[in-house]
Amino acid sequence: MQEQPKSYSNQRKYIGKVQGVIFDLAGTLIDFGAMAPVEALQATFADHHIDIPEPLLRQLSTSDYQQQLKQLLDEGTVSEAWSNQYGRLPSHEDLENLQQQFIPHQIKSILNHADLVPDAIELAKHLLKQGIKLGINTDYSRSLVADLLPELHNKGLTTTSVVCANEVSRGRPYPHMSLKNAIELDVEHIHACVKVDDTEAGIEEGLNAGMWTVAVAVSGNKIGKRLEDWQALDKTQQDTLRSPVTIQLYRAGAHYVIDTIKDLPACLTDIEQRLKRGEKP
Amino acid sequence: MQEQPKSYSNQRKYIGKVQGVIFDLAGTLIDFGAMAPVEALQATFADHHIDIPEPLLRQLSTSDYQQQLKQLLDEGTVSEAWSNQYGRLPSHEDLENLQQQFIPHQIKSILNHADLVPDAIELAKHLLKQGIKLGINTDYSRSLVADLLPELHNKGLTTTSVVCANEVSRGRPYPHMSLKNAIELDVEHIHACVKVDDTEAGIEEGLNAGMWTVAVAVSGNKIGKRLEDWQALDKTQQDTLRSPVTIQLYRAGAHYVIDTIKDLPACLTDIEQRLKRGEKP
Amino acid sequence: MQEQPKSYSNQRKYIGKVQGVIFDLAGTLIDFGAMAPVEALQATFADHHIDIPEPLLRQLSTSDYQQQLKQLLDEGTVSEAWSNQYGRLPSHEDLENLQQQFIPHQIKSILNHADLVPDAIELAKHLLKQGIKLGINTDYSRSLVADLLPELHNKGLTTTSVVCANEVSRGRPYPHMSLKNAIELDVEHIHACVKVDDTEAGIEEGLNAGMWTVAVAVSGNKIGKRLEDWQALDKTQQDTLRSPVTIQLYRAGAHYVIDTIKDLPACLTDIEQRLKRGEKP
Amino acid sequence: MQEQPKSYSNQRKYIGKVQGVIFDLAGTLIDFGAMAPVEALQATFADHHIDIPEPLLRQLSTSDYQQQLKQLLDEGTVSEAWSNQYGRLPSHEDLENLQQQFIPHQIKSILNHADLVPDAIELAKHLLKQGIKLGINTDYSRSLVADLLPELHNKGLTTTSVVCANEVSRGRPYPHMSLKNAIELDVEHIHACVKVDDTEAGIEEGLNAGMWTVAVAVSGNKIGKRLEDWQALDKTQQDTLRSPVTIQLYRAGAHYVIDTIKDLPACLTDIEQRLKRGEKP
Amino acid sequence: MQEQPKSYSNQRKYIGKVQGVIFDLAGTLIDFGAMAPVEALQATFADHHIDIPEPLLRQLSTSDYQQQLKQLLDEGTVSEAWSNQYGRLPSHEDLENLQQQFIPHQIKSILNHADLVPDAIELAKHLLKQGIKLGINTDYSRSLVADLLPELHNKGLTTTSVVCANEVSRGRPYPHMSLKNAIELDVEHIHACVKVDDTEAGIEEGLNAGMWTVAVAVSGNKIGKRLEDWQALDKTQQDTLRSPVTIQLYRAGAHYVIDTIKDLPACLTDIEQRLKRGEKP
Amino acid sequence: MQEQPKSYSNQRKYIGKVQGVIFDLAGTLIDFGAMAPVEALQATFADHHIDIPEPLLRQLSTSDYQQQLKQLLDEGTVSEAWSNQYGRLPSHEDLENLQQQFIPHQIKSILNHADLVPDAIELAKHLLKQGIKLGINTDYSRSLVADLLPELHNKGLTTTSVVCANEVSRGRPYPHMSLKNAIELDVEHIHACVKVDDTEAGIEEGLNAGMWTVAVAVSGNKIGKRLEDWQALDKTQQDTLRSPVTIQLYRAGAHYVIDTIKDLPACLTDIEQRLKRGEKP
Repeated sequence: MQEQPKSYSNQRKYIGKVQGVIFDLAGTLIDFGAMAPVEALQATFADHHIDIPEPLLRQLSTSDYQQQLKQLLDEGTVSEAWSNQYGRLPSHEDLENLQQQFIPHQIKSILNHADLVPDAIELAKHLLKQGIKLGINTDYSRSLVADLLPELHNKGLTTTSVVCANEVSRGRPYPHMSLKNAIELDVEHIHACVKVDDTEAGIEEGLNAGMWTVAVAVSGNKIGKRLEDWQALDKTQQDTLRSPVTIQLYRAGAHYVIDTIKDLPACLTDIEQRLKRGEKP
Repeated sequence: MQEQPKSYSNQRKYIGKVQGVIFDLAGTLIDFGAMAPVEALQATFADHHIDIPEPLLRQLSTSDYQQQLKQLLDEGTVSEAWSNQYGRLPSHEDLENLQQQFIPHQIKSILNHADLVPDAIELAKHLLKQGIKLGINTDYSRSLVADLLPELHNKGLTTTSVVCANEVSRGRPYPHMSLKNAIELDVEHIHACVKVDDTEAGIEEGLNAGMWTVAVAVSGNKIGKRLEDWQALDKTQQDTLRSPVTIQLYRAGAHYVIDTIKDLPACLTDIEQRLKRGEKP
Repeated sequence: MQEQPKSYSNQRKYIGKVQGVIFDLAGTLIDFGAMAPVEALQATFADHHIDIPEPLLRQLSTSDYQQQLKQLLDEGTVSEAWSNQYGRLPSHEDLENLQQQFIPHQIKSILNHADLVPDAIELAKHLLKQGIKLGINTDYSRSLVADLLPELHNKGLTTTSVVCANEVSRGRPYPHMSLKNAIELDVEHIHACVKVDDTEAGIEEGLNAGMWTVAVAVSGNKIGKRLEDWQALDKTQQDTLRSPVTIQLYRAGAHYVIDTIKDLPACLTDIEQRLKRGEKP
Repeated sequence: MQEQPKSYSNQRKYIGKVQGVIFDLAGTLIDFGAMAPVEALQATFADHHIDIPEPLLRQLSTSDYQQQLKQLLDEGTVSEAWSNQYGRLPSHEDLENLQQQFIPHQIKSILNHADLVPDAIELAKHLLKQGIKLGINTDYSRSLVADLLPELHNKGLTTTSVVCANEVSRGRPYPHMSLKNAIELDVEHIHACVKVDDTEAGIEEGLNAGMWTVAVAVSGNKIGKRLEDWQALDKTQQDTLRSPVTIQLYRAGAHYVIDTIKDLPACLTDIEQRLKRGEKP
Repeated sequence: MQEQPKSYSNQRKYIGKVQGVIFDLAGTLIDFGAMAPVEALQATFADHHIDIPEPLLRQLSTSDYQQQLKQLLDEGTVSEAWSNQYGRLPSHEDLENLQQQFIPHQIKSILNHADLVPDAIELAKHLLKQGIKLGINTDYSRSLVADLLPELHNKGLTTTSVVCANEVSRGRPYPHMSLKNAIELDVEHIHACVKVDDTEAGIEEGLNAGMWTVAVAVSGNKIGKRLEDWQALDKTQQDTLRSPVTIQLYRAGAHYVIDTIKDLPACLTDIEQRLKRGEKP
Repeated sequence: MQEQPKSYSNQRKYIGKVQGVIFDLAGTLIDFGAMAPVEALQATFADHHIDIPEPLLRQLSTSDYQQQLKQLLDEGTVSEAWSNQYGRLPSHEDLENLQQQFIPHQIKSILNHADLVPDAIELAKHLLKQGIKLGINTDYSRSLVADLLPELHNKGLTTTSVVCANEVSRGRPYPHMSLKNAIELDVEHIHACVKVDDTEAGIEEGLNAGMWTVAVAVSGNKIGKRLEDWQALDKTQQDTLRSPVTIQLYRAGAHYVIDTIKDLPACLTDIEQRLKRGEKP
């Protein structure tokens, strides 16, 4: 026998091309500033003549709207406003009613903020030309995006896979949605996938799926400014807002932090060089 | 500003426990020697009074039975035997008929060879005790294993996820089945998964999914011997059969090559130490 | 709970720019050939009519002048010359007298050899333009460089930090001087610092401080030739002198060995690329 | 010539023992729960008959008391209370007065909370036995700890180096304090140092200095509970508080996160094994 | 003592140039398609009026001709043809006679297929210009290549070292031949060597010698097509043949898989960059 | 096609056992203190009534005796003594005569100092038991060790391979001798070899051959003390001598520095663990 069978290990590495990119929706691919969830919550409470300031909404620790409504009702100033309005503290039944009342506002807000982030169509064309498939996953449920997806398609954005939070047993930061995307994108190797997101939970979802991750700092929920509001800031103001967000997204483990998806192609080039050198995400 | 926002990268690594193990069926978890597919093919041709030697069947380059039947009909000695029997070369219609005739033989063979590999129940108990969930994926279609799975359950083997080849768009070595398992096993991170298989395609499937992989050399299709036939060999004969198979499985990239799943617990311990040291699969 | 708190490690890496470069003085930034220490020792003994050949001085195993004078007095030929001169072996009192007599010679020699190494001013401008601060540390005590520093400043060399051997409790190869420089240079991360030196002890000092290191082979003490003497050599003679010195400096662990600081910018570019790839010094 | 001088690089690594451990004070070495800063702020405002709830104090984004007082005065509920009390919004002069009034409260609070964290003396003995020197650095200024240090010494805690925020030009997360400690601890190599802290800024300070870092989750400011309050919680309550803090400290880049310094020796053992294997912090 | 003697390791790495390239002969440097061994075997049996199909010859599991002849005689169709021809099964004496009869056929076939692979001379000139020496090792014995080598030299191919299988105690995949080449090529470091081969055993030989390895897929034995036959295929046919061979050669551990040695210079450039970055083969 | 052929690399690593250890002779395996070369040189000059002090002989920069004699004749004190003795400076003819006169002294000295280093036989038995073959290479020529080798064999030291400097085209630090040993030891992979030596050139020879290296500090030429002289020193004296030598041998790149070969087994155990973890020398 010429070779001891257990004297050699062989480490196999994917050194090929990026094959799929998976985008979060609000704050990443559409809805610069991630305004829709904020607007829907504000509108729901406005029906009860209660005004919720935006900073309070940006700090909610969950992306699940039922939890968000509960957190708001529990919040001191909100529960006080409710008492003033109705002469009693909000009840469990009030919460359930609010959750029902929220949905039509949310559908409307999502459509109101369906604008693609600048250069999204150019990026989609670039990916197509590189043979890279485009996937989406989102905290929105399927019914919420039912009207949105055809509209995106009409604007020129063709997707191979869309996964919604209600279609998997666990949401972010669990890897379930991204893994389902990877199956539907028909990638050869999980290292050929890149997840793009504007939140820490979305970056961790991609990392937990074994993918490369790119965070967008400027268009996302953590800065939370409409495109025109962002552009109206001077460079120093922009830097002051962007710096802490960039640090937070790097701390979550993002391989790259960019301003918006417009800057994605350079990341993909770098990822392919790292794959070729034998690096893993 | 105290910190340049882009001066630091943070590399996040999973350093936790193994959470899920995904087993192939024939030759790995059940059917020592992977006899069922061979037996079913032989039985199908025996109905036509054609005898197919086992070595020919072990060398087939595909695990898709429709392709296997086509390859056999194209093979010189088989097509000659067919001519002798029927006075003409096999036609496309003959192939389609054979594909129909094959299915009942396959169902029967799978049940005939449903015996668990030795110590499988002890292993299942060990995994349960460690809090590790057990998944299965297989080249068999769902209908083929419909009767088998309850039987395994009755023997004491509880699975959290079973994925069949017909439930994903692409089979091995694509990662689709293992990724679907990972979703169903509710793992936190893809690096918390281990794929166990007896074939190169099955090992590559696990690697493509970003998982740790363990290959079983002795109980699998590549040696292709029933348990009792294997045990009847002396040590030198066993070594002569095992050496080239071990080398082939390492070459496919398996992190570990063991004899049978009985030896799996030591691999899991080693994987957890490597995770803790910051290694990725 | 969505995430096991101890299942993830995050490895933070500095991937930013070089922020500070710390130069040794004699043989690195000024005094091509590191002539001053040699000249001062020779002058001290010349006062006693004893001639010390230069090779003897270049091989001294310490850079502490008090130790150097002691080693020389202990040396066979020197102690013999002393006996011939004074009719007795050198006493401890003789040593102490010599140590006093040495200091004015040293001050004079340092000023005699205050010429900057060629292109030092161009390099300083380059560093300034890159936003890189310039530090100095030296085996000389503060009083010895008191007159030298303003002169360097007048020549156009602006430094943010100067640390002298007598200002820390332990000299090279201990990291104390370089760490003090790093504090004074206000760097964000120790990996943003580069130590440049012509001796093994100086390279080790930088490595012990966790910094990148660049050794200069040609202008330093280990070759020990004045600029004009070096330039008068043909290429083969230069190679013969440079080869063993280059090897010795690499063996001390220098990340780069260059001829003189003129070649430093290419090293800094390479260091920044290595930092960006996630390498540590 | 037998060897091309530039054909070989030599990478030098520290593979020796841990030589120094640098502890933060409040929340790490003393003052379980980091109560002193909170108490001093509350007392300062109490003099003005204004009550500040503890959660507001734990969320302050700076450890600089002058900034903290300013942030509090700017806060809605506080500025409203001030108006109610004094009939006008707080002025710049009010802030300056508060900053003066704060100092005696702080001195008193620090002494009130000078109790060592449990097992600190045992740990100090363990370090001494291992030949590891003990350093301290702190956001407190020297005058604030002037009375505290002798008291710690009387309790049996001998330190080789104490660095206060006012003794360096930049505080955490800049590495200045830890680098000054390293010089005073006379360590051979910066990789022989370990920084222990309860805050992200303190962990980053250690990482920026090129050191190993250990975070304490339970005794620190981020949980902010007195020892007896922590011990009164059941295991589930403790886990609920500890999990997010552990994650935050890992995200800052801590090599280890432990409950309190009682668990430090196991980290030091692991660090020495990693150094021996050639790892860098 | 300033430095603990065992506190530092120094890892020395070769970061210089490639100094030697070692080529296999048939299928790599000469004899596109590795036709000579096949032709010689066919001719030997043709003398006995037995026709051996080429696929059978390409699948032989050994490159030792004595073993090859034995395997063929043992093969079912061949032994049957022998029986038909001579009225009895082949005896041991028949085998020995065949082994004698084989040699002149082999010598003739080797000379028949001595054509250099396209661009071999250009490559040799390129290597010469880069200062890289050229070695050869081969499964052929010295007597078989005695006439071939001067002919190659006349064509412009100058070699510094030729090692034949009969000159070392163990053939491929043992590293013996490549190590002997390295000595004769006078390389400074084994990492300065590159082995080029068309078979798995040849690649493993290079890896076992600690060298970089480059596999040629198209000109070699595993595809087994003459240059003109290969060129006559369309791109799809070529891809179909090349894909599995490329995968097999990568699985054996080849650092690079190229079509023919014409593509070697790009690999050498990449190897030198990897050496400079501190990588080992 | 299921798999892109160039999308995967496979890195093959030797993870087996140590198979061969190659020892230098004088100062490593025999002749504690490496006395023979010194004694032979002294004896040669003693015939000319010239006394050469041992320190001068220990510092010679070459191990080639012809160069050593030339260096000595060129040395100031020696050439002066020669002049005193013969009334003229040494001529080229004198050098050639000395080179002739040296050889019988050297043969005699080698045999005088053929004692094995303590525990060498126990070590040889240990290696045999582990299935590790024992090789030797030496700067001595074959004729010089012709009488020595049978004597070692009689003492119980069985070697599989002995390579002398005159049997390869280039001596240390070229890898030629160690590569020749590896061929003769029939190792499967160059990473299964360990070179043991007492000099920098010998360590570099092993590193250049791609092997693991172990340096012996105490028994070797760099300390240069007979066993009994070493043992007569107290611990402090021993440490003072050993420290700089240990540092020099680590700087040459030795993976381990031990006192004598008695400490080798622990290194071999560690090497096998590192191989198993996938490390390369």
